[in-house]
Amino acid sequence: MDNRPIGVFDSGVGGLTAVRELRKILPGEDIVYFGDTGRVPYGSRSKQTIVKFAVQNMRYLLTHDVKVILAACGTVCTNVTEKDIASAGIDAPYHGIVMPATRAACAQSQGGRIGVMATMAAIRSGAYGKALRTIQPSAQLIGNAAPLLVPIVENGMTEPGNPITRQALEYYLAPFIREEVDTLILGCTHYPILYDMINEALDYKVSLVDAGAAAAHELKVMLWENDLLAARESGCARYIVTDTVDNFVAVARNFLFEDIESSTQYVDIDDL
Amino acid sequence: MDNRPIGVFDSGVGGLTAVRELRKILPGEDIVYFGDTGRVPYGSRSKQTIVKFAVQNMRYLLTHDVKVILAACGTVCTNVTEKDIASAGIDAPYHGIVMPATRAACAQSQGGRIGVMATMAAIRSGAYGKALRTIQPSAQLIGNAAPLLVPIVENGMTEPGNPITRQALEYYLAPFIREEVDTLILGCTHYPILYDMINEALDYKVSLVDAGAAAAHELKVMLWENDLLAARESGCARYIVTDTVDNFVAVARNFLFEDIESSTQYVDIDDL
Repeated sequence: MDNRPIGVFDSGVGGLTAVRELRKILPGEDIVYFGDTGRVPYGSRSKQTIVKFAVQNMRYLLTHDVKVILAACGTVCTNVTEKDIASAGIDAPYHGIVMPATRAACAQSQGGRIGVMATMAAIRSGAYGKALRTIQPSAQLIGNAAPLLVPIVENGMTEPGNPITRQALEYYLAPFIREEVDTLILGCTHYPILYDMINEALDYKVSLVDAGAAAAHELKVMLWENDLLAARESGCARYIVTDTVDNFVAVARNFLFEDIESSTQYVDIDDL
Repeated sequence: MDNRPIGVFDSGVGGLTAVRELRKILPGEDIVYFGDTGRVPYGSRSKQTIVKFAVQNMRYLLTHDVKVILAACGTVCTNVTEKDIASAGIDAPYHGIVMPATRAACAQSQGGRIGVMATMAAIRSGAYGKALRTIQPSAQLIGNAAPLLVPIVENGMTEPGNPITRQALEYYLAPFIREEVDTLILGCTHYPILYDMINEALDYKVSLVDAGAAAAHELKVMLWENDLLAARESGCARYIVTDTVDNFVAVARNFLFEDIESSTQYVDIDDL
């Protein structure tokens, strides 16, 4: 039993897709969410900058006495290695989304044709291919980078009729349709915020994997196996962001269907 | 006569539109360009964060002994006030793009129907409206925010046939066509990188104002009037960025038509 909070971080609002699932399957847990909205997006930046930002974020979460860190950010999980984390002196249990999402995709896939849509940095890393070779080497992986989807979500352009969002999805999803994937990993935690639009653009023919939700499920198992679950029925979530709270709260409201303004606070990047 | 360099900064590659013009009209000047590619975009962030980033950038430029600072960033120019700059202890001559762009628009406009396309933060500030009321109160201003264009340019999606860029321009330019503007201020220095596509989307019927170029022209006059021009025939430009140089150099190559890799260097944001 461990009543300390779970720490979750992302470049911006994307990690809320993991938080939503954690709140559902682990209602007794406290959660501290860190969204680096002052420096989002991460996916167009270099590995060097991504590692630097991720380490700062994790160190900050540790000041909140978290029992485990979930990096709910596809760009971080594919670019920051265990070695980077160890050499930065971060010794908390660390969980990512790549292995859970790839395992979920293998479980869901009928024909072994798996797509992964993610940020430029995530695709460039080759991490999903490496994960798939470990889990199901016979499966085929088709990757495509979708650099504009994070700015689209962060700018709240998530209403079904938005013509730019529709055009962007049509463009980024075309290779997956052409390659006839049966399963698509949404390899960036921002993308499930566009779940319905993605599903529609794929004509409901492709099984979608929400990487944040998949990671939440595996985290639950890990906490249970290690006797780290909280001993309470109802936990609370706190949100910390590096730009003003307004935009974050607005996007969160549309996605979590609750108002988190009173539990969201700003922290100065220079204080990380 | 002053042989010290001109300092220019922007959130990313956008300010190169001012640099290109400065190199053309003031070939004897040295230029130090600072592009905050590690934290771009600015236009979706709060005023508070924009002020903080801008002040850090200006302080950094001052360490290069610049004789004047050109804020070649529409978001900074519309959100950071003279008072912000003074209270941060920055006492170098400071020039922005809002007044030069608005003056150029008034000079170019036939019918006094002027549009301004800019970032969310720039439009929200109301700065262009304020400038127009000073210069030509009888003119009508139509503003529209185009939050995705900076990510589009920073991701190098600038080739004429890019369907997402075309869709985004069609969407963002529609209000200006509907309102029959005769002149459009490209109120963010990134936008002239899409000049031809914007011109085509407007059916070549609207006079476009390149805010960076307009600012470069006024800066030349100021330097001349204050006897601050450099006394040499050929100056050089140095570029400093806060993420790795590769992406910056690639976008710059397509826009400046020269390879600036050997004159571009990286600086860590934490060293600003």
